[in-house]
Amino acid sequence: MTSATAPTPPSAEGADGDLARLSLNTATTKALTLAEAVDAAVRAGLPAVGLWRDRVQEAGVEKAARLVADAGLRVSSLCRGGFLTAADDAGIAAALEDNRAAIVEAATLGTRELVFVVGGLPAATAPGGPAAPYPADVDPARDLVATRQRVADRIADLVPFAQEHDVRLVLEPLHPMFAADRAVISTLGQALDLAAPFPPGTVGVVVDTYHVWWDPDLERQVARAGAEGRIASYQVCDWSLPLAADALLSRGYMGDGYVDFASITRWVAAAGYTGDVEVEIFNQGIWDQPADDVVATVAERYRRHVLPFL
Amino acid sequence: MTSATAPTPPSAEGADGDLARLSLNTATTKALTLAEAVDAAVRAGLPAVGLWRDRVQEAGVEKAARLVADAGLRVSSLCRGGFLTAADDAGIAAALEDNRAAIVEAATLGTRELVFVVGGLPAATAPGGPAAPYPADVDPARDLVATRQRVADRIADLVPFAQEHDVRLVLEPLHPMFAADRAVISTLGQALDLAAPFPPGTVGVVVDTYHVWWDPDLERQVARAGAEGRIASYQVCDWSLPLAADALLSRGYMGDGYVDFASITRWVAAAGYTGDVEVEIFNQGIWDQPADDVVATVAERYRRHVLPFL
Repeated sequence: MTSATAPTPPSAEGADGDLARLSLNTATTKALTLAEAVDAAVRAGLPAVGLWRDRVQEAGVEKAARLVADAGLRVSSLCRGGFLTAADDAGIAAALEDNRAAIVEAATLGTRELVFVVGGLPAATAPGGPAAPYPADVDPARDLVATRQRVADRIADLVPFAQEHDVRLVLEPLHPMFAADRAVISTLGQALDLAAPFPPGTVGVVVDTYHVWWDPDLERQVARAGAEGRIASYQVCDWSLPLAADALLSRGYMGDGYVDFASITRWVAAAGYTGDVEVEIFNQGIWDQPADDVVATVAERYRRHVLPFL
Repeated sequence: MTSATAPTPPSAEGADGDLARLSLNTATTKALTLAEAVDAAVRAGLPAVGLWRDRVQEAGVEKAARLVADAGLRVSSLCRGGFLTAADDAGIAAALEDNRAAIVEAATLGTRELVFVVGGLPAATAPGGPAAPYPADVDPARDLVATRQRVADRIADLVPFAQEHDVRLVLEPLHPMFAADRAVISTLGQALDLAAPFPPGTVGVVVDTYHVWWDPDLERQVARAGAEGRIASYQVCDWSLPLAADALLSRGYMGDGYVDFASITRWVAAAGYTGDVEVEIFNQGIWDQPADDVVATVAERYRRHVLPFL
């Protein structure tokens, strides 16, 4: 709203050195328009933002790109592409079309990193739900192995278009709590296996503490992701209990839950990741707080729980 | 209540052949006393029950053993030992004492299979919670790697006593949703790694569909568990959405959620498992139904979704 005409804010170089890698994912300040979120990041001295497509489209993609660039901010990632699990021709065509649009948007915004939430089982996500009655043999709408194969097939479909636009498809493993309805990629190792056929500059992975903190294989897979050059984003927020009524909204500020940020951050640093650290918190209580307070808390918790280990 | 004096019910051999491997885990009929649950299983033609320690202790262990044997039922497993993650001497001693008692109870009840829910992070489970303030470096109360190592150490402590009593310590991977507060064993592969130093007759694993259905490595790990002779129990219930307010109670009847029972049951059968199939459902709505209706539904869903693939 105002930032396009406001005086040029301090550039990233002028930001607090401690925050030189901290990016505000705009999901954390869900109520704000893109312009308002950009202003909040600038006021707090952050050098980068992670964007969501809904707020970008609301602003207009070209205008959003100017708005962020004029504010002197980097775009650390665009959320999100994906939802690739449809089994029918029309669903597949629609998913490919939407993801090609997302690739163009990422390129226009000046980020290479397009985060993919790949979608769930047809039984949980298809319009109208699965066919009834429940079949006697394997139900295609509940067939997790086949659904995961469709994700692999769709990634292969999208890779050439992503390469043309110099955008990376960034696979996000989601917590297994979301395997039925949001993402059939459930571990970092699985994401890396899916990425393996493609160049690391074209298919990458996210390490999001909320989704992967519990994984007994995490240290090894983070090291593998780093060695392969595939870590496209490090996202941090905490696993808080009890789970919210809407499980999607259970995330907390770093330090409010049970994630061992010291260990995971060390693993990510040891893996050679030098990019931005996005804070992405879905939490109604936090969304209800004043945005400047939220961003200040994000920065404070980042300094305490993440930065010392980066 | 009545079964100790009732006429001898049909033996397992007399039960419906279709149900010859179906075991009622008494958590599914939570409101019933042990005697009532045994009666309900017998009335429905089931040959086995999986018992919980609280109901066994309420009845008295010796009496519980007689009651089940007199009804002609097998005890497929005893739930549960575990909660092994304490870091302080008193907590460790208490955990070992309680688990030795559980081993004796299992032996008395005539089952070799003592299911272990191993416990969560001290930050989520210790009385009074973790020490404040949150430390600058790795917080021991949130250190998942160290907590998992303590589980390994306690299993090693308990193995000789388990061997003396011919009882198997059965490690249950819990869904990663419970990694903070219930069990730091989150995958079947991790459970098998923890079991590896010990003979398969002394440390085994549970395959519980609710907890492991999402795992991209599941087929391979089930085959491994079978090849190693470690599958001590196959437990079935469904992953239903939305999650219940108390996430522990989100389980559903087979067929009501998103688990692919055909595939997983085939993998378990291909792994050579020939033991009982326990139905263990934590769900307030099901607990509120008449027990005979619940057991009849369990049997009907078992015939439809599990038995054809066993």
